[in-house]
Amino acid sequence: MRKKVLVVAAHPDDEVLGCGGTIARFADEGCEVYTLILGEGITSRDDSRDRHKREEEIRTLKKEAEDANNILGVKKVYTFDFPDNRFDTVPLLDIIKTIEKIKCDVKPDIVFTHHQGDLNIDHQTTFRAVMTACRPIKDESVKEIYSFEIPSSTEWNEPCSLTYFMPDYFVDISKSLKVKINALKEYETELRDFPHPRSLKALELNAKQWGIKMGFEATEAFKTIRIRT
Amino acid sequence: MRKKVLVVAAHPDDEVLGCGGTIARFADEGCEVYTLILGEGITSRDDSRDRHKREEEIRTLKKEAEDANNILGVKKVYTFDFPDNRFDTVPLLDIIKTIEKIKCDVKPDIVFTHHQGDLNIDHQTTFRAVMTACRPIKDESVKEIYSFEIPSSTEWNEPCSLTYFMPDYFVDISKSLKVKINALKEYETELRDFPHPRSLKALELNAKQWGIKMGFEATEAFKTIRIRT
Amino acid sequence: MRKKVLVVAAHPDDEVLGCGGTIARFADEGCEVYTLILGEGITSRDDSRDRHKREEEIRTLKKEAEDANNILGVKKVYTFDFPDNRFDTVPLLDIIKTIEKIKCDVKPDIVFTHHQGDLNIDHQTTFRAVMTACRPIKDESVKEIYSFEIPSSTEWNEPCSLTYFMPDYFVDISKSLKVKINALKEYETELRDFPHPRSLKALELNAKQWGIKMGFEATEAFKTIRIRT
Amino acid sequence: MRKKVLVVAAHPDDEVLGCGGTIARFADEGCEVYTLILGEGITSRDDSRDRHKREEEIRTLKKEAEDANNILGVKKVYTFDFPDNRFDTVPLLDIIKTIEKIKCDVKPDIVFTHHQGDLNIDHQTTFRAVMTACRPIKDESVKEIYSFEIPSSTEWNEPCSLTYFMPDYFVDISKSLKVKINALKEYETELRDFPHPRSLKALELNAKQWGIKMGFEATEAFKTIRIRT
Amino acid sequence: MRKKVLVVAAHPDDEVLGCGGTIARFADEGCEVYTLILGEGITSRDDSRDRHKREEEIRTLKKEAEDANNILGVKKVYTFDFPDNRFDTVPLLDIIKTIEKIKCDVKPDIVFTHHQGDLNIDHQTTFRAVMTACRPIKDESVKEIYSFEIPSSTEWNEPCSLTYFMPDYFVDISKSLKVKINALKEYETELRDFPHPRSLKALELNAKQWGIKMGFEATEAFKTIRIRT
Amino acid sequence: MRKKVLVVAAHPDDEVLGCGGTIARFADEGCEVYTLILGEGITSRDDSRDRHKREEEIRTLKKEAEDANNILGVKKVYTFDFPDNRFDTVPLLDIIKTIEKIKCDVKPDIVFTHHQGDLNIDHQTTFRAVMTACRPIKDESVKEIYSFEIPSSTEWNEPCSLTYFMPDYFVDISKSLKVKINALKEYETELRDFPHPRSLKALELNAKQWGIKMGFEATEAFKTIRIRT
Repeated sequence: MRKKVLVVAAHPDDEVLGCGGTIARFADEGCEVYTLILGEGITSRDDSRDRHKREEEIRTLKKEAEDANNILGVKKVYTFDFPDNRFDTVPLLDIIKTIEKIKCDVKPDIVFTHHQGDLNIDHQTTFRAVMTACRPIKDESVKEIYSFEIPSSTEWNEPCSLTYFMPDYFVDISKSLKVKINALKEYETELRDFPHPRSLKALELNAKQWGIKMGFEATEAFKTIRIRT
Repeated sequence: MRKKVLVVAAHPDDEVLGCGGTIARFADEGCEVYTLILGEGITSRDDSRDRHKREEEIRTLKKEAEDANNILGVKKVYTFDFPDNRFDTVPLLDIIKTIEKIKCDVKPDIVFTHHQGDLNIDHQTTFRAVMTACRPIKDESVKEIYSFEIPSSTEWNEPCSLTYFMPDYFVDISKSLKVKINALKEYETELRDFPHPRSLKALELNAKQWGIKMGFEATEAFKTIRIRT
Repeated sequence: MRKKVLVVAAHPDDEVLGCGGTIARFADEGCEVYTLILGEGITSRDDSRDRHKREEEIRTLKKEAEDANNILGVKKVYTFDFPDNRFDTVPLLDIIKTIEKIKCDVKPDIVFTHHQGDLNIDHQTTFRAVMTACRPIKDESVKEIYSFEIPSSTEWNEPCSLTYFMPDYFVDISKSLKVKINALKEYETELRDFPHPRSLKALELNAKQWGIKMGFEATEAFKTIRIRT
Repeated sequence: MRKKVLVVAAHPDDEVLGCGGTIARFADEGCEVYTLILGEGITSRDDSRDRHKREEEIRTLKKEAEDANNILGVKKVYTFDFPDNRFDTVPLLDIIKTIEKIKCDVKPDIVFTHHQGDLNIDHQTTFRAVMTACRPIKDESVKEIYSFEIPSSTEWNEPCSLTYFMPDYFVDISKSLKVKINALKEYETELRDFPHPRSLKALELNAKQWGIKMGFEATEAFKTIRIRT
Repeated sequence: MRKKVLVVAAHPDDEVLGCGGTIARFADEGCEVYTLILGEGITSRDDSRDRHKREEEIRTLKKEAEDANNILGVKKVYTFDFPDNRFDTVPLLDIIKTIEKIKCDVKPDIVFTHHQGDLNIDHQTTFRAVMTACRPIKDESVKEIYSFEIPSSTEWNEPCSLTYFMPDYFVDISKSLKVKINALKEYETELRDFPHPRSLKALELNAKQWGIKMGFEATEAFKTIRIRT
Repeated sequence: MRKKVLVVAAHPDDEVLGCGGTIARFADEGCEVYTLILGEGITSRDDSRDRHKREEEIRTLKKEAEDANNILGVKKVYTFDFPDNRFDTVPLLDIIKTIEKIKCDVKPDIVFTHHQGDLNIDHQTTFRAVMTACRPIKDESVKEIYSFEIPSSTEWNEPCSLTYFMPDYFVDISKSLKVKINALKEYETELRDFPHPRSLKALELNAKQWGIKMGFEATEAFKTIRIRT
């Protein structure tokens, strides 16, 4: 099963937070994994966007992304410069076309992306763009789409059927949890201290908690969007 | 029952795909049917919108719309130039005001429009604008609103309660299916080959499939948004 | 991939209607498939249940089940005598324990069963019992659970998020559709004339309709309940 | 439009509470309206059912039902003796068969019944039985099904998508509200004092409240279950 | 219990319509209440926004807001100039940052804001911005968030689980209903005549209607978004 | 705030699993807490119920319940003998009347009970019975109702809006987690080994996991059913 996997993330580190353990496991099992990161992940710190001023931090973050994905076994990281936390200022069509280009390049069998109910506007937009870019027409390479959770975005929206993350696909990452944690360490600038959901310890607890529910030691949880087989 | 019907569509051909058989039947039974098409339906093919470059194709498409609606028995087609697949770059209020103007002109009893859960951003926006334009205040002419499906947009979103098309209103189009198919043929540039959902044969199968579920030969399916009687 | 599959159906013929094409394909690809049919499928015709009176019809139906499953390539059919369309008169726990016993015998990797939103009370009960019988504890063999639709039950409930069938897992049955149809022919007593949803032609149209939506020639549609991998 | 209407209610008075104004209006406009009341509406007052002990109250209540429906213009009231608030002790199939018999007798075009999300177990069961009894097969007379609310049952369940009453069909009962109130007065034993939701004043307020939302003086609200036309 | 309350409203008068009775009661019981109004509430009357032209009306409306909130016992009203009914033309992040600033100033325990399913685009956007601005991190002051309904926006969207207002938190405003009505009278320019949902009489009926359902004389209804205690 | 709290649980130990930490905290803060346990919790182990055979285990379990609740600070435990995992064989009305009696005795302000979407049939039935027993009529003592999760039942149902536990009310149990764990130890016969969700370590992880999401050290999560204030 040498499948190709494409992870489509809104910001650097989302790909590790959302499915780092699964990436590491799939890569280890012989899949080719690619990561596409749409936004630069930095400029929302300012009241109005000033990409120039944040040039260096953006470069650092891209470097961290390279290193983290390297640890996971990802073959290639594609990065773009959509404005951090301001995807709603960009025509959705531009994001769709960007994803389509990479997708046609990679021809993935499996796509992982954000949950449509996330609080974060960029996550929502990414999901929507992926859905359009991967329409199930006759010769579409993409056969499986799953969405992942991002601690501190997915669980902080209103708890209702419209937004809640209700996973049905659980990947045993008992053997790759350590690799995920190592990859996350590369994202120094993004991590928080415990008990923040994006601290290393909290992320480990999350994997264990899903594990308990599903009878594994450590688990990443996903929602099946579509499987064609 | 000489009611007035207004169909509000995002793009040329949506009105036929979504409710062409019902239009033809209602027109045949003495209703006055009007079609409002909001977008030009062409310019999303380019990476950035260039209306000028696509002038001729837009004109052709408007001509096809005239002819197709003519076949269905529509009294008048209103067309506007909102940017194809980029309705999110326009203030929602502009679209609302556009619909309101036509609505005040036509004074329809019944409105058909898109499903709010469609994958296509223009479809979603059209639905939202219609809902605001047709608020049920005291002297509002609109008494019934229904939403329709568009093959290859409605069924390709995430299958969840937030987006899924769950129709409850089924119109027998056994006698008008042929007219619908003929109208669609006018939209030469928009049709695809079987098995694409927007091929003539796939559209016929869709009508038969709803028919089987509801005990008719051919059926169009809608979701009741509001009936006041 | 020599996986074991268990199909849990409420009545004889549900297993073919719901996933006959998939059974045939999986069996052909080397899976071991088992069918468990809980109810006798006959006695609801009488105002009060009289199993004795219907003895012969029940026997005939079991014979048809054997033959149909044989055609699909099923290794073994387990049948029980829960009262047709009266599963609500039986303690749910009895049905759970019945499924558990067969499940422990077969040790399936994959389970297919009814959709919890079906109009038919036996279908609903079967789903619930399966969910309890296959809890994801540590050494549970069942790794995947999917639910299927049954034409003329699944689509005739109230169309709402509580009940609607919103599939996300689509199996290409282009090559096995013919086998499914042949298996269905064995259930002579259960088939209806077109345009009833349970006529041969309607079933074929249904497979083609899902195919159109998913880019295959013929498809069976399922909802992912849980995948652990 | 001389349509036939069948109202299927769980208990005496539900038919008036749920759709009394609509019955009166439709009857006034020339429809033939029939009422089917499934339960006796009394015996749940005792810890265990004692029909004999309550014989007289049951007879009184049936008399009130006759009188109330008479006021509304109903042609005939069918009553049965299913055990009050204990429909879960009866096989669902028995209730389905009862409804089927009356339905075949009346051959209604339109059916009104309870909301499936009501707190009351008999209301829920009635809805389910109606859905099965009125399946949309080819020669089925029933073309429209709507569900109604019952003050003090519909609004007292958990407020979630699974149970909430979200109406989309609004009938102007400005002219028949008075008749509804008069019919309710016949059910002396069932009414409560204001501010109980089943007091006359509260019921009037409810009709006015829906009216305000929909631009009428007084309104009854329903949920469209299915329209075939 | 001297808690601090922050009401976040999209337009002047929403704070009174949505939770005026609760504000008055809480203020009376010793809470400090603050109101934040994001939009100017006027310029959507023009086809394209002309703030200058509407300068005076905007000033009048702000004055009315001051007076109305004064009557309710609000300590301070913060107003901003986001474009009326055109919040979708502003980056969501700008609105988030605005709310965050006021929130850090006030340090509220409780926040009331719009329902995410409202038809009005500004209401929806306000809800989303509040959710991000009040994330439940460790030292966040906000412990409770509730959403309110706005007559003539909340009830006029499509009636589905995605949008419907299903309240679970009911505040007895029997004693403060009069104050709410008085505060509303200050918003002369915004009120409508009965039977419009935003007439004084309709608003009173609404409070009584929720009261009937919950056993109080007059009630405001809210949806619990989050309580941390 | 010396409020009265009633916990309604289906089986012995559910009250501790679901809200043990909250009970301990509320009792410590001066509330009077009562526990009502409906089922005997043992006899489902047999293929058909034999209460006599299990007499002693039932007595042991009741003793454990007494001890566990004692540790939590509960004033009184009411136990009944409804058949374990066979609540569907009892008329719902019997369970309602049982709860009503205790409720009238205790006159609680707050009720905690099961989540209606739990996989376990007794949990579901308990929720429904509580909702009817605590209808919000005028002089009803119950002002607040919340539902809790039970590890290994709540998370093992189909993950859909119909069943998923989406909490909105979070109680900080940092100080009482230890008491909860101690109370659980009394239920020796019910505990499982890690990684089963009902092991001591898994329960502790669960409390920490909700804590991380809500900014506390340890948390119990509930869904608000209704608050009247």
